Amino acid sequence: MNKTSKLHMTTDEFRKEGYKVIDWIADYYENIESYPVLSKVKPGEIRNSLPKDPPLKGRNYSEIIDDMDLMMPGMTHWQSPNFHAFFTCASSGPAILADLISTGLGTVGMLWETSPSCTEVETHVLDWLVDMLALPQKFKSTSSGGGVIQDTASSSTLISLIGAREHATNGDFNTDRDSKRLTAYVSSQSHSSIEKAIKIAGLGKNAIRLIDVDDEFAMIPEKLSDQIKADIDKGLTPGFVCATVGTTNTTAIDPIKEIGKICKEHNIWLHVDAAMAGSAALCPEYRFIHDGLELANSYTFNPHKWMLTNFDCSVLYVQDREKIINAMSVVPEYLKTKDGDAGAVINYMDWSIPLGRKFRALKLWHVINYYGVEGMQKYIKENVEDTQTLRKWIEEDGNYEIVAPTPLNLVCFRHKNGNEFNLKLHEKINQSGKTYLTRTKINGNYILRFSIGQPTTTIDHVRKTWDFIKETANSLG
Amino acid sequence: MNKTSKLHMTTDEFRKEGYKVIDWIADYYENIESYPVLSKVKPGEIRNSLPKDPPLKGRNYSEIIDDMDLMMPGMTHWQSPNFHAFFTCASSGPAILADLISTGLGTVGMLWETSPSCTEVETHVLDWLVDMLALPQKFKSTSSGGGVIQDTASSSTLISLIGAREHATNGDFNTDRDSKRLTAYVSSQSHSSIEKAIKIAGLGKNAIRLIDVDDEFAMIPEKLSDQIKADIDKGLTPGFVCATVGTTNTTAIDPIKEIGKICKEHNIWLHVDAAMAGSAALCPEYRFIHDGLELANSYTFNPHKWMLTNFDCSVLYVQDREKIINAMSVVPEYLKTKDGDAGAVINYMDWSIPLGRKFRALKLWHVINYYGVEGMQKYIKENVEDTQTLRKWIEEDGNYEIVAPTPLNLVCFRHKNGNEFNLKLHEKINQSGKTYLTRTKINGNYILRFSIGQPTTTIDHVRKTWDFIKETANSLG
Repeated sequence: MNKTSKLHMTTDEFRKEGYKVIDWIADYYENIESYPVLSKVKPGEIRNSLPKDPPLKGRNYSEIIDDMDLMMPGMTHWQSPNFHAFFTCASSGPAILADLISTGLGTVGMLWETSPSCTEVETHVLDWLVDMLALPQKFKSTSSGGGVIQDTASSSTLISLIGAREHATNGDFNTDRDSKRLTAYVSSQSHSSIEKAIKIAGLGKNAIRLIDVDDEFAMIPEKLSDQIKADIDKGLTPGFVCATVGTTNTTAIDPIKEIGKICKEHNIWLHVDAAMAGSAALCPEYRFIHDGLELANSYTFNPHKWMLTNFDCSVLYVQDREKIINAMSVVPEYLKTKDGDAGAVINYMDWSIPLGRKFRALKLWHVINYYGVEGMQKYIKENVEDTQTLRKWIEEDGNYEIVAPTPLNLVCFRHKNGNEFNLKLHEKINQSGKTYLTRTKINGNYILRFSIGQPTTTIDHVRKTWDFIKETANSLG
Repeated sequence: MNKTSKLHMTTDEFRKEGYKVIDWIADYYENIESYPVLSKVKPGEIRNSLPKDPPLKGRNYSEIIDDMDLMMPGMTHWQSPNFHAFFTCASSGPAILADLISTGLGTVGMLWETSPSCTEVETHVLDWLVDMLALPQKFKSTSSGGGVIQDTASSSTLISLIGAREHATNGDFNTDRDSKRLTAYVSSQSHSSIEKAIKIAGLGKNAIRLIDVDDEFAMIPEKLSDQIKADIDKGLTPGFVCATVGTTNTTAIDPIKEIGKICKEHNIWLHVDAAMAGSAALCPEYRFIHDGLELANSYTFNPHKWMLTNFDCSVLYVQDREKIINAMSVVPEYLKTKDGDAGAVINYMDWSIPLGRKFRALKLWHVINYYGVEGMQKYIKENVEDTQTLRKWIEEDGNYEIVAPTPLNLVCFRHKNGNEFNLKLHEKINQSGKTYLTRTKINGNYILRFSIGQPTTTIDHVRKTWDFIKETANSLG
C-alpha cells in the first residue's frame, strides 16, 4: 500500500473502505440479535450462490464488502448474546482493533530479530498473566520456564506432549527398535484434542489410557495410579498425564494435587489443560481450580475463550523451556542470528509448530490495558453469577434435572422425559435460531449444555432463553 | 459490543477508535520508508520500556493506541518496499480489511454447522485456485481430494506427513513393537520445517534422509532411488518424499516428474512444498515449476507469501481426503452433528491440528476479487522481471558472482572477496536500516539472498538498494 498505485489499494482508498468496514462491524453488533444464532442454510446452499469462476478483472472494493450479503445467511453467530453452545469464544472491541493493527503491520515474529517487539511484548504480557491468574512463578520467563502464545489448546497440548515424549526417552523417541513404548493418561472426560495429539505425535493408537471419573466427572487418582503401575509391570513407559480443569462436557475439575503427586513419584510429565476455565483464576474466589498447579510441567489456557481476546490466542506455560526447545528446535543457516546463537534472546519459532508468527501479544496488551485487572474480574464474576442463577431456575422448575456440578459458567441439565425427548428438544431449540446449545452424552444420557460467556449476555438474555427452552419442551408435550 | 455498556467497548466507541486505527495503518504505510527496515533495538530494550505491572483500572483506548510509540522501535518492517530478507510475506489492503471483517464476526468454523459460509467459501476459493494455478484437477473438492487452509507450510507439511505415515502403516504406526520403521526423504536444500515435522510426527531422528542435489541445487532423482532401495534392503519402509519447488536457500526446483515416478514405483507418498514459489503459477509462463505435479499426493503453497494475502494463510491440497481425515479425525459426542455424521458436509477440524478455525477464506475471497486474475498475474510478473534486472546488474558489476539460478524472484550472490568479507558486508547492510537481506551458506560459502515480492517495491527501490550494497562493499575496502 502507498499513496499512488494503479494495481494495489492506495492508502486513500484504504482509509475510505476501512471506515466502511469499521461501520459494517459496528452495525453488525448493533443488529446481531436479529440473526438466527445457528445458521439455517442447507449444505451447499452458500456455495451454490457464489460465482462459479474467479473474476479475470478486479472489482470495486465496495462491491466486495457487499458480497457479505451472500455469506451472512451462512454464518453462525458466535458473538451473539444468545450463543450458549460449546464454550464461549468471547471477542471485544480492543481485541478486534489490536488484531487490526497487528495485521496492518504484517510483521512475522519467528525470530527475535524479525520483530523484537513481537517477542518481548509476548514475554512481558505472559509474565503479567502469571501474576494476574496467580499461577506458579516457575512459569515466568525470569525462571527456567516461560510462556508462549499458540493458536489453540490443541497445539499447546501437542507441544507439551512432544516435550514429554522426548523427556521420557531422553530425546531418543523411536530412534530404533528397542525404543521405549510410551503410554499417556487422560480422564474419560478429557477433550478430544489430547487423543488427537497422541495420534499426531506418533505414540500409536494403543498408547492412550482413559482413566475413570468419579460422580463429579473428575479423574480418580487411585485409578490413575493403578493403571500406571500396571503399565510399568508390562514394561511400558508412562510418559504423559493430562489433567483437565474444566472439561468440555461438564467443566469437571480433575484433582491436580493428587494427580501431580503420582506423576512426581514416577517422573511423568503432567500437563494441565484449563483451556476455557483457566481465565476464572483472574478472580481470587475461583483460584481453587488451580490447586496443585505447582506440580505441573506445563499448563494451557485460552484467552480467546473466556478472556475477551478474540480467536486465536492460546497460552502455553512450561516449567522448563529447554525441554520444549530441545524437542522442537531445528535451525538452518538462513534462520541463524547473532543474538539467537548467543542465547541472548527468545526465538519463539523454537516453541511452536509453525515457523511464522503474528504479533498476537498485541491483543493481550490491548485487552488487559483497556479493561484493567478489575474490569476483567468483573466480567468473569458476572458470567459465573448469571450461570448460578440459571442453575437455580432449572432446579426450581421440577421438570429437569441438573446432571453435573456447576463450578463456573456451564450448566448441564436434561428434561426428565428421557433421551428421545431431549434429542428432539435440542433439535427444536437450535432450529429456532433463538439460541444455540450443544448436546452431549454422559452415562448413556443425552444432556444439554448451557454455557455463558459472551460479554453482551445479560441475565435478561438468559431468562428469555430459559423461558424459550421451557416453552419448547411444553410444545413437544 | 453493543450500544450501551459501562464495562465493554460500545459500538460508538468502536467506530470512533476504529477510524483512528484505520488512519494509523494508512499513515504507517505512507511513512514506512522512514523506519529502519531491521529494528535497531538491543535485546531487552523494548521490555524495559514497558510498565512492570498490568493496570488495575482500565485505560482510555486512545492512550492504548499511543502505546504503539513504545513498540515501533522494536518492529522489523516486513511490508517495507526495502524488505528483501527471507521470502516476502506480502500483504494488501483488501486482505487486511477482509481479516478485519473475519475478526469482527468472531466466528469459529471447526464444523460446517458452526459457520457454513466459513467452510463453503473455503472450499469454493480453494477450488478456484486449482484452476488459477493450473494445478491437477484431483486436488478439487469435486474429486476425491480437496484443499484446506492451514496457518503455515510447516503445518501443511506435518499433516501430509501424518497422512503418509498412516498410509504406509495402514493406520497402525507404532501400534506395537513389530511396527514398520519409516524413512522420509528430502533434499539437502529442503526447508527446516520438514525435519521438524518428522520430529513431531515421532518418526525418530534416524528416519530422515538428506538426498544430494545437483549443480542447480535440485534433488538428484538417481540418488533418491538408490537411497530408497538401500533402505528397503535394510528392512525399512520408505514412507514420505518431499520435493521442493523453490527452496529457501536459492529457489531451486526439484524435478517432480522424475521424483514422482520413483515414488509411484515404491508406493511412497509424495508431498510437494511450493510455499513461496507456488504463486508464480498464476502466470502461464512460470507453470513449468509444477511439471509432474499430477504425481503428487499432496501439495502446499502459501498465499501469505507471494499472493498478497496476509499471514497466516497456507493452502494444503491432497489427492485423497479420506487419507487425511482417517489419520486426523477424533470426534467426541459434543462435536457430532447430523450433517457431519451423514457425510453431507466438510468439517475442516478433521483436516487440521487446531480444532478452532478463523474465517480465513474471506481474505482469499477479497484478494482474488479485488485484483482479479489478471491483476495478480501482473504483480507476480513485475516481481520476477525486477529480479531478473537486478541479476543482470550484479553480473555486469564484475565484483560479485551469482551463485545459483534465478528462476523467479530471488537472486543469490556473493562478493568475490571471500567469506569474511561477505559476513561483514551482510552485517553492515542490515545494521544500516536501509534494507534487510538474509545470509545463507552454500558449499561452505556465505552468500547473500535478495528476495523481491513486496507490492510497493519498484525497480527504483531495487536500484537504490543495489547501489547501497555496492557503496557498502566499497567502504569495507
